[in-house]
Amino acid sequence: MIHKFEHPLNEKIRIYLRIEFFLKQLCLSSQFTENLQYLLFFRSLFDLLEIFEQIQLKSELAKDIEKQRLIYANWLHVDGVDQAILVKILQEVDCVYGELINAERFGQSLKEDRFLSAIRQRFNLPGGFFCFDLPALGHWLHLPVDQKNADTSLWMHTLKPLADALKLWLKLARETGHFHAEKACNGFFQGDTEGANILRLKIPMDYGAYPMISGHKNRFAIKFINFKTGQASTQDINFELAVCC
Amino acid sequence: MIHKFEHPLNEKIRIYLRIEFFLKQLCLSSQFTENLQYLLFFRSLFDLLEIFEQIQLKSELAKDIEKQRLIYANWLHVDGVDQAILVKILQEVDCVYGELINAERFGQSLKEDRFLSAIRQRFNLPGGFFCFDLPALGHWLHLPVDQKNADTSLWMHTLKPLADALKLWLKLARETGHFHAEKACNGFFQGDTEGANILRLKIPMDYGAYPMISGHKNRFAIKFINFKTGQASTQDINFELAVCC
Repeated sequence: MIHKFEHPLNEKIRIYLRIEFFLKQLCLSSQFTENLQYLLFFRSLFDLLEIFEQIQLKSELAKDIEKQRLIYANWLHVDGVDQAILVKILQEVDCVYGELINAERFGQSLKEDRFLSAIRQRFNLPGGFFCFDLPALGHWLHLPVDQKNADTSLWMHTLKPLADALKLWLKLARETGHFHAEKACNGFFQGDTEGANILRLKIPMDYGAYPMISGHKNRFAIKFINFKTGQASTQDINFELAVCC
Repeated sequence: MIHKFEHPLNEKIRIYLRIEFFLKQLCLSSQFTENLQYLLFFRSLFDLLEIFEQIQLKSELAKDIEKQRLIYANWLHVDGVDQAILVKILQEVDCVYGELINAERFGQSLKEDRFLSAIRQRFNLPGGFFCFDLPALGHWLHLPVDQKNADTSLWMHTLKPLADALKLWLKLARETGHFHAEKACNGFFQGDTEGANILRLKIPMDYGAYPMISGHKNRFAIKFINFKTGQASTQDINFELAVCC
């Protein structure tokens, strides 16, 4: 069994990974009919709205997608590069970029939704989403499944340009790194990179240790911690590492 | 379709209902193998620990159970009261009371658990439970299902005296109220009670309205709100009401 682990090397990527996580939670939780899942759904949705209010996500992502487009465009007509695959990627990039640029400010229509904004106010209070404090949510949860699904689909649809663009950007970013074997002597590993964004690790679970990573785009350190004791591991740990730009 | 709604008439019952909700979430989320569910599990667990730190729950609940025991004991040897059922209830009350009194301070062993306290610190930060911020949680999530289930069972077992006592107390409290038909003229209803704890409502969903309740143990008001418009409803609404002590 392998522990797959990803670590962002800068604040923007940290936010991208958080958004990816929330979008996954939204998708998963919207597929269930259990009321519990809807609560997870709203929490993810409101966590996303909070991020949208903090950063200019749309323009940041558009810039990053454009950068990727330029990198891939440089490989056009270069010998030995599979042009069919390249053209397909560039078409995909153009498509999500177009959707992204034409999209509303992320979360705009969600913020304008009367029901969502009414329950959002109370939802993030500590332990705050009880039906006796939020009778409107209680009413919504009692609506027929079809109607709830129609609502969740509509809300999620407004996030599609973001979801598509982020998914493609992260996919291409992850593909820039290739896993190779490394060894953390006495549970410690240090590495240099040039402008990397994401570290990806595969660690055999047998070691019973998890990684604590510190670092930025040029240098990073991985310290393995023994899960049972919480202390730094002193064993040599063989793992796989991919450094992605 | 019926919207079943409960409203606590004092702060202690509000806390009891919140705890009941968290315990239900714990049970439900511990049954799934999806990682998402574990996140819901930990959130519920930590929300409970926060409540335990705020109030002397054990002694409050013990006092309330004891009060119920005295009320039921008064019916012993009274003609027309089914003594077999009564004796059974009193046995149940004695049993959960004994377990409750002998239990540790609620959450004590959970707070002493190294893994739980390590992840709890970061878990409640806004949007805070990402595996790159909590690699120990990432490791735990990768453990075999059997091992995770063993952990969750162990943690939940420590809450059993609380869960049993609260479940019985709320069951008996809810049984003190009997549903009867009421009408909210122009969407408004007002009532008097004597030391009531919980209001329970059954509202046909057809009205498209949900209740906003204000009040305390002696008096309460129910205002129905139109779900679509968010405005006070002006229609006459037939609903069922049970006032529970």
